[in-house]
Amino acid sequence: MSIADKIKSGDILTMSRLIRDIDDGMPEAEITLQKLFKHSGDSKILGITGLPGAGKSTLTSLLISYYRKQNKRVGVVAVDPTSPFSGGAILGDRIRMQEHNADSDVFIKSVATRGSFGGLSKSVVDIVRIMEAAGKDIIIIETVGVGQDEIDVVRLAGQVLVVTAPGLGDDIQAIKAGILEIADIFVVNKCDLVGAEKAASELKDAAEDNITGDLKPIVMTDSIHIKGIDELTESIDIGFDKFNNDNIKNEYLDRRYRYEIEYKVRDKLTETIRESFENDPVFKDILKAVRDKKMDPYTAVTKIMKNVKLT
Amino acid sequence: MSIADKIKSGDILTMSRLIRDIDDGMPEAEITLQKLFKHSGDSKILGITGLPGAGKSTLTSLLISYYRKQNKRVGVVAVDPTSPFSGGAILGDRIRMQEHNADSDVFIKSVATRGSFGGLSKSVVDIVRIMEAAGKDIIIIETVGVGQDEIDVVRLAGQVLVVTAPGLGDDIQAIKAGILEIADIFVVNKCDLVGAEKAASELKDAAEDNITGDLKPIVMTDSIHIKGIDELTESIDIGFDKFNNDNIKNEYLDRRYRYEIEYKVRDKLTETIRESFENDPVFKDILKAVRDKKMDPYTAVTKIMKNVKLT
Repeated sequence: MSIADKIKSGDILTMSRLIRDIDDGMPEAEITLQKLFKHSGDSKILGITGLPGAGKSTLTSLLISYYRKQNKRVGVVAVDPTSPFSGGAILGDRIRMQEHNADSDVFIKSVATRGSFGGLSKSVVDIVRIMEAAGKDIIIIETVGVGQDEIDVVRLAGQVLVVTAPGLGDDIQAIKAGILEIADIFVVNKCDLVGAEKAASELKDAAEDNITGDLKPIVMTDSIHIKGIDELTESIDIGFDKFNNDNIKNEYLDRRYRYEIEYKVRDKLTETIRESFENDPVFKDILKAVRDKKMDPYTAVTKIMKNVKLT
Repeated sequence: MSIADKIKSGDILTMSRLIRDIDDGMPEAEITLQKLFKHSGDSKILGITGLPGAGKSTLTSLLISYYRKQNKRVGVVAVDPTSPFSGGAILGDRIRMQEHNADSDVFIKSVATRGSFGGLSKSVVDIVRIMEAAGKDIIIIETVGVGQDEIDVVRLAGQVLVVTAPGLGDDIQAIKAGILEIADIFVVNKCDLVGAEKAASELKDAAEDNITGDLKPIVMTDSIHIKGIDELTESIDIGFDKFNNDNIKNEYLDRRYRYEIEYKVRDKLTETIRESFENDPVFKDILKAVRDKKMDPYTAVTKIMKNVKLT
């Protein structure tokens, strides 16, 4: 059986190995990804984002349980240094996760932010592709809502939950700082805490959809005491039902593939520029001229744009 | 007096206007930046990064007070949605900040993450340049240590403080996820809290400098009760003294300008690709072929690399 066939059968070990090979930049891995492409595009992809401390991971865990009860196969990509999926955890969360880890129809993959640009989104895009080809019905991308790349990556999703909670400082302000427009559903988690109603009412002004003028759903949840989850999953289901309309589905796929292609092109260009700084004497001379104040960096950028050799 | 001359005299209104013009993409703004370049490169630039809740802003505020007592002019660029400098704040912090706001030798500029790639670092680079030309002796770049762009931007700095605190979940794990290697000094803030000693001792393994083999300084601070600040500022001063060595200074400037140029080139290329997707029929056809599964996105990336027109 080929690697692509093994992935399609949902083989966990082969999936993990392929993800590692992608990380290691193995050329065969990209060939496998090319083969898997035609088996992707049909999973429901849910983005979950919000500030650290909003309770995204506990919510994710509850959603996994909900979809598993419906006998759906679930994939999770966690990009969040404070998430139990990706390492930082309180013990209770971690135990809850381990329950899912034992479930062979739940595939969880954590992706660390690497502190160097380019790598993050590339691997998330490919991991999602592998999960789709492996027949996951729903794929959750959980990412901390701080950091441009981290926010951007949920653009792969058909729907995005923006999760907030009372007591995270001036949450609404933080949400305004960039993730408002990508939300399809707002979740005020930890709704048993003081300030939850206030957070929800502040969100109302901000939750108006720019295109339709409708108010985006604002759902109050308490993922510790398991409140509001039915309402949330109902909102999510209604949202995904919209993709039964071909126009809406195509619009989403266009947005998703465009994001994917733009990101990968940007990655390759960044790599090309980086290598040129290491190896190309023209680049080295330009850098030296800037350091010696014989050329300003703005002029340097223009000169380098002319000298980038694309392959 | 020209705009560049007004900036050099430290005129706050002109600085703010130029920053706004850069944001608005005014071509004259870049010409001013080109003129200001030769007056930059001499400020001490300090990066401060760490997870939300580590107390970076309170620490920044104390450092501002320290440098002001030495009669140094201070600039602060805050890129952190949970920072009082950039909007999200507890009241106490905000009041403390306002004290500095009334001081005309302290220039604080907040930069929001915008939820779209490219913009962040570009504006930070230019704001730092303006602050340098305006004669700021020390410039602090405060950024949340989550998110690749947010972490990368402290590479402009001569020295980077990585701030952690007990009780942020599995902090050390989070630090390992990408910001370890960029730290020059580790700060365990909120050192009065349980777990501070443990955090410091865990850091010891991680704090070995890859190049020199030395242990990077680990400083315990409590910025609420103002402990450890003398030790911290001493470590910072020792670090900046190293730049009196021309080789070390040149190495830093090379790294900084290379970062700056790479980022700006990447921004321009990203913009070019984005515009091509809007306007270029070749790009549109490629996207349609991918959506129709006639072409996989990996092949699309290769085709688009060949079609990018650089200007």
